[in-house]
Amino acid sequence: MFNWILIDEIIEKALMEDINYIDITTDNLIECDDVCKGDILAKEDGYIAGLEVFERVFKLLDKETQVNKLVKDGSKVKSGSKIAEIHGKTKAVLKGERLGLNLLQRMSGIATMSNKYAEAVKEYSVRIVDTRKTTPGLRVLEKYAVKVGGCHNHRFNLSEAVMIKDNHIRASGGIEKAILKIRDKIPHTMKIEVEVEDIESLKEAIKAGADIVMLDNMRIEDMKRAVKVAGGRVILEASGGITFDRIIDIAKTGVDIISIGALTHSVKAMDISLKIL
Amino acid sequence: MFNWILIDEIIEKALMEDINYIDITTDNLIECDDVCKGDILAKEDGYIAGLEVFERVFKLLDKETQVNKLVKDGSKVKSGSKIAEIHGKTKAVLKGERLGLNLLQRMSGIATMSNKYAEAVKEYSVRIVDTRKTTPGLRVLEKYAVKVGGCHNHRFNLSEAVMIKDNHIRASGGIEKAILKIRDKIPHTMKIEVEVEDIESLKEAIKAGADIVMLDNMRIEDMKRAVKVAGGRVILEASGGITFDRIIDIAKTGVDIISIGALTHSVKAMDISLKIL
Amino acid sequence: MFNWILIDEIIEKALMEDINYIDITTDNLIECDDVCKGDILAKEDGYIAGLEVFERVFKLLDKETQVNKLVKDGSKVKSGSKIAEIHGKTKAVLKGERLGLNLLQRMSGIATMSNKYAEAVKEYSVRIVDTRKTTPGLRVLEKYAVKVGGCHNHRFNLSEAVMIKDNHIRASGGIEKAILKIRDKIPHTMKIEVEVEDIESLKEAIKAGADIVMLDNMRIEDMKRAVKVAGGRVILEASGGITFDRIIDIAKTGVDIISIGALTHSVKAMDISLKIL
Amino acid sequence: MFNWILIDEIIEKALMEDINYIDITTDNLIECDDVCKGDILAKEDGYIAGLEVFERVFKLLDKETQVNKLVKDGSKVKSGSKIAEIHGKTKAVLKGERLGLNLLQRMSGIATMSNKYAEAVKEYSVRIVDTRKTTPGLRVLEKYAVKVGGCHNHRFNLSEAVMIKDNHIRASGGIEKAILKIRDKIPHTMKIEVEVEDIESLKEAIKAGADIVMLDNMRIEDMKRAVKVAGGRVILEASGGITFDRIIDIAKTGVDIISIGALTHSVKAMDISLKIL
Amino acid sequence: MFNWILIDEIIEKALMEDINYIDITTDNLIECDDVCKGDILAKEDGYIAGLEVFERVFKLLDKETQVNKLVKDGSKVKSGSKIAEIHGKTKAVLKGERLGLNLLQRMSGIATMSNKYAEAVKEYSVRIVDTRKTTPGLRVLEKYAVKVGGCHNHRFNLSEAVMIKDNHIRASGGIEKAILKIRDKIPHTMKIEVEVEDIESLKEAIKAGADIVMLDNMRIEDMKRAVKVAGGRVILEASGGITFDRIIDIAKTGVDIISIGALTHSVKAMDISLKIL
Amino acid sequence: MFNWILIDEIIEKALMEDINYIDITTDNLIECDDVCKGDILAKEDGYIAGLEVFERVFKLLDKETQVNKLVKDGSKVKSGSKIAEIHGKTKAVLKGERLGLNLLQRMSGIATMSNKYAEAVKEYSVRIVDTRKTTPGLRVLEKYAVKVGGCHNHRFNLSEAVMIKDNHIRASGGIEKAILKIRDKIPHTMKIEVEVEDIESLKEAIKAGADIVMLDNMRIEDMKRAVKVAGGRVILEASGGITFDRIIDIAKTGVDIISIGALTHSVKAMDISLKIL
Repeated sequence: MFNWILIDEIIEKALMEDINYIDITTDNLIECDDVCKGDILAKEDGYIAGLEVFERVFKLLDKETQVNKLVKDGSKVKSGSKIAEIHGKTKAVLKGERLGLNLLQRMSGIATMSNKYAEAVKEYSVRIVDTRKTTPGLRVLEKYAVKVGGCHNHRFNLSEAVMIKDNHIRASGGIEKAILKIRDKIPHTMKIEVEVEDIESLKEAIKAGADIVMLDNMRIEDMKRAVKVAGGRVILEASGGITFDRIIDIAKTGVDIISIGALTHSVKAMDISLKIL
Repeated sequence: MFNWILIDEIIEKALMEDINYIDITTDNLIECDDVCKGDILAKEDGYIAGLEVFERVFKLLDKETQVNKLVKDGSKVKSGSKIAEIHGKTKAVLKGERLGLNLLQRMSGIATMSNKYAEAVKEYSVRIVDTRKTTPGLRVLEKYAVKVGGCHNHRFNLSEAVMIKDNHIRASGGIEKAILKIRDKIPHTMKIEVEVEDIESLKEAIKAGADIVMLDNMRIEDMKRAVKVAGGRVILEASGGITFDRIIDIAKTGVDIISIGALTHSVKAMDISLKIL
Repeated sequence: MFNWILIDEIIEKALMEDINYIDITTDNLIECDDVCKGDILAKEDGYIAGLEVFERVFKLLDKETQVNKLVKDGSKVKSGSKIAEIHGKTKAVLKGERLGLNLLQRMSGIATMSNKYAEAVKEYSVRIVDTRKTTPGLRVLEKYAVKVGGCHNHRFNLSEAVMIKDNHIRASGGIEKAILKIRDKIPHTMKIEVEVEDIESLKEAIKAGADIVMLDNMRIEDMKRAVKVAGGRVILEASGGITFDRIIDIAKTGVDIISIGALTHSVKAMDISLKIL
Repeated sequence: MFNWILIDEIIEKALMEDINYIDITTDNLIECDDVCKGDILAKEDGYIAGLEVFERVFKLLDKETQVNKLVKDGSKVKSGSKIAEIHGKTKAVLKGERLGLNLLQRMSGIATMSNKYAEAVKEYSVRIVDTRKTTPGLRVLEKYAVKVGGCHNHRFNLSEAVMIKDNHIRASGGIEKAILKIRDKIPHTMKIEVEVEDIESLKEAIKAGADIVMLDNMRIEDMKRAVKVAGGRVILEASGGITFDRIIDIAKTGVDIISIGALTHSVKAMDISLKIL
Repeated sequence: MFNWILIDEIIEKALMEDINYIDITTDNLIECDDVCKGDILAKEDGYIAGLEVFERVFKLLDKETQVNKLVKDGSKVKSGSKIAEIHGKTKAVLKGERLGLNLLQRMSGIATMSNKYAEAVKEYSVRIVDTRKTTPGLRVLEKYAVKVGGCHNHRFNLSEAVMIKDNHIRASGGIEKAILKIRDKIPHTMKIEVEVEDIESLKEAIKAGADIVMLDNMRIEDMKRAVKVAGGRVILEASGGITFDRIIDIAKTGVDIISIGALTHSVKAMDISLKIL
Repeated sequence: MFNWILIDEIIEKALMEDINYIDITTDNLIECDDVCKGDILAKEDGYIAGLEVFERVFKLLDKETQVNKLVKDGSKVKSGSKIAEIHGKTKAVLKGERLGLNLLQRMSGIATMSNKYAEAVKEYSVRIVDTRKTTPGLRVLEKYAVKVGGCHNHRFNLSEAVMIKDNHIRASGGIEKAILKIRDKIPHTMKIEVEVEDIESLKEAIKAGADIVMLDNMRIEDMKRAVKVAGGRVILEASGGITFDRIIDIAKTGVDIISIGALTHSVKAMDISLKIL
């Protein structure tokens, strides 16, 4: 699933950050040949994401390290349950422990929260999606965790899809002009999303051929009207300051997509520990 | 304050992640010469951290961009107040907006939470410190934000200070042996911290000449005893699953340091927006 | 238009390749303070692309170097006409000359060929697009040149858009299953393109909701039928071994897109020289 | 033959360019354990170059991938013949296909054209050599392909050998002064080449001790005279706008070297495909 | 012991420096399958350091290369004795020979000199330590070699420990103010070292709570007084222009630490050769 | 003179090594706006090399820093004389001081030693040249310093010139075969050097058309014979364990080149200090 050239670069940067030139304690007290076993344990309920990345941390420190994954990404685990076992050189295990857990805990935290959102709306034909409000440098891992948790991804980066906002509209002389201008310049493989704040703009966007319309910070009532106005001609995305409390009300409006920055920008790491036996 | 060689590398990596080869919308709809102004606004109360890093994002996109900082890092701001103004090429402002905010919001979120902890114990002569549970790749920024918020830093990486844990002790044949062995190998500029789980081990660590002893997951009563036993001969650090509710009780025990992973591993981004005028 | 972080990295790598540690001739024979002027001249007719990149090569060697662009990217120039003037330290001009020209000549060669294709079909509502058959490492520059020449871009990379080929179909158990399976997993901002070799598959792809169908190596007659069958419900892309001779016949079939690898994989560099005065 | 540290860096950069963070189609539709076989087929006659590099692309994606090379670099192949077989994880094969072919086709295109030139002059004791007009970033691969095709390499970079041009001569106060000045500064392992436009300059260069003289854009008659004048005392290199038509006439003049930019700057990729079975 | 992510980067950079794109001699004259054996021989007496790094050079060129280490780092060897045997592809052995030896000779030279210093003072309870006067880019290897030779390390970098010098004192308004100010800002894991030039300043530093005091360029008599004044309350470090002749006299003063830049800034490479059999 | 893309990379790597994420002392005690002046002083006699590199260290930390060079590279300075003045932000000066001096001292140490060798043989028409026994990562700076000191450079890397050694000869079936084989494969711009240990091999090398012959570890008498045998037909290079004592005797033999590894592998840093005023 992962492009390991990219992931390895992330891990190696992070190992350099955490170790720098030596693990002064471990390299002075542990023998090079010492081996150990350890258990990776959930300390709270949650959904696991990132086991392959966790394993890779140790493989990059010592390719002989074995990580025996007892569950798969996306599995629900109970507090106290064992997620994986590790076996390898003690030095590699101790040096990789903190980074491995930092990644696994963060990714599982995202998966767990995403799952909560996805579960909440499962009766509705709506998608919860993430945003570009990810941790700088870790987007690929965080967006993966969102999917593991049962939500979906929005565009990955600014190159990948068009999102016409207020400023683009103003600079282009209106929604229609913006859409026509950019349709002529972008690959035929790309969709155009337009951000609107009212029903008039929605109508204009639909007329001009938008593929997706983002309803920015709209009230529930307006969303309902938007759904009626759109009549299935565009994908409707609700966005802007959406909290968990409002999620079902928004789902009920009939919008297709709800995008939520908090899935990645305000993450509670899942409590997971590595217990060396 | 920052080593810009390091910070620039972080920012450039993140810009590549967010932009890749083009901002397909902006580069097709905004003219190269267009300029704009914008306000950076707090959308909730909090403590600001990361304004220099925020500014640097835009400078790296177009060195002519001006960011006029109206407050300093560490300032308390009210919801609705203006934090800074930006003025520059519209293309640079739009391309840097997301990354600039992602960093500023995360760092300010950390500063705000740190401040809450620091305020809670300000009557006591105890330090709240962070841990190595930081976001991989962003440690330098996150540890900076912890300090801006009024807390302190623990060691930055595994090279910088000794932390003898259970496994190191076992491999060395006891606390005393471990301390003596490593004292002989490390620079005279380094302190030795030992992690203990009971009072006996604390006594052994003090006797062997530890500089700092970490009381791992101890109950309040045991911490009190540890303080009495130590009698100022070592720095005592309380650690392990410490929540905000317990912080004052722990402070009252007389330990010198309380280390809290949540300062960086479970951050709620502060709500800050860039409003283009 | 360009993400300079990306472009600068390309240029710096290439300067290191061409110079390594010194320009043994120039650094030993030219004084550091010597300045010179030069003209960039077209030695054949063509369309210019890459002047900003050309300029950047010299700026990175010495930021004081001045490149005065007399035409814009996309301009048609005649053999013998002056494209730009350069003025700066002789050392910088001589060291950058070869790389600057290598890039400008290649990009202008692509623009010139693209223009020829675009011109040929300008009476038809068809787009000529490029492919991923670009020079490894230079895709961003080559796809830019294709657009400068009047053609369009296909997807930039494997992350950006879905292209379901024979193997994907087989592994998924048919076109419909493949489309349904992937629709559920990809961002709502993405389109799905399916590659087909016959009309039956086209029908299946349309029915299953494909956005774009690539007609792989089809005969003209089949393309015509495909256009009729599709009836505007999907974008039709003709692809596979398309030569200039057939381009008008294909355009007449009514397909929407013609993709041509030769735009970038078999480029004749435009003859351009730098004449130092 | 290759410095793999360098080649791997080229390939990894190019894989990042082509894949970015995911192959959205393959990673969503192909199982991780799926394996496949494929044939690499020549679709036109030509000389193969780059099979080791082709193989390396897939090894870097998944080191278990097997590429069974049926011919060696430098072999002449007929249209329709099988060049190699590939066997490995379907994901790795599909992700590496485009880059592997882009490199193999380009390198084989260069080898094929080089062979045509080398064959044309094989009766004469003249070498056809390349220039620095290579694709930025790929010089090492392109110069290798030139040799595979039967031609030779000129200097690799500006550090490696001296080439005194008009500007260097002017700045030094004449050919003799330039040669004497630089001879004193360069390693004794280096040769000096001087570029001249007339016979007088050739004489001056010989007298001053040049090792090689480049006859820049000279007419056939002048080349003949140059050969006579030189009398074997220097290596003579014909250069400048040399087309295939003139190659034999130039060879007949008796010059030692003919340098041709088109070997690398205007390459027609050889048609090669990967057919998954 | 080593962080191989860091060491590999150093080695790969150095291989690129030494080889660039090809070993023009070896790659043209030695067959890819040729294997050879070689002996690594000491040509003078000394202490060996760097065998693992030596081995890694060849492993990175060809992971099949075998280096059979006959001694361990820190061993004393006699001129003429065999240190290790190498066995592998001739190409890898020849390409790695120079870099492997450059590293091994330099590291062994440092270990040998360090041993001389360490031996000289072994009767005294004083440590000889290195400084930051290391070769740019090789600090991790040089500080390792210092320890192999029997001396100790000072701080690794500017992040790791506090060293308050004259300028810091002046800017802070005195020694006491500087110490108090920085104690409040640094991690509790860090020590504070202050540089002083006279006894008054030493007293002030002790009073203000310095952990280490560096006696900069003090005369022997003053060092003795400093030891008396300190009375064990701080670690005393003698520094500044210390030559081998004075080392015993300084050791006798009772200072704890003597720091010597020459351990790394003026190294005589140990004479070691690789003899291919 | 320098390729700054390369030099900057060396300096930035070294600054990261020396600073890592912060200068904990300076960043906490010195105000961002503080400025200072300093003198760079020679503490012993010697030849200066590296002033531009020294300056660049500070420019990369803060581009406003001014370094006023009072002498040029290659100047002889007396102990106590001022080499340069620095003026800039105190933070930048303190952070760059160690690296700037480490480079300047090392390069000046090399220049000083090179000068001693060059002076010794100035009556003879012989060149003293360096070898590839340079510090890994710093070759470009060290070879520059050798030239500044009045000696010359041998080949820079393995790509740049042919050096046929014993193993190459054996693998090729003799000196003549080796030379003929490689002459056919290398650029016409390259010379061929052959390493020989006796007069017979010298004769064979000359006959086969070698350009340079290295006399490896020959006795003075044999060198004299070699000069006679060669009679000016090849460049003769004396090499192998050459010490300063023997240099004049070797020069008198009439060889053209004497190569000396000690110029770079066993350097005594010149004593230079930065005195902040």
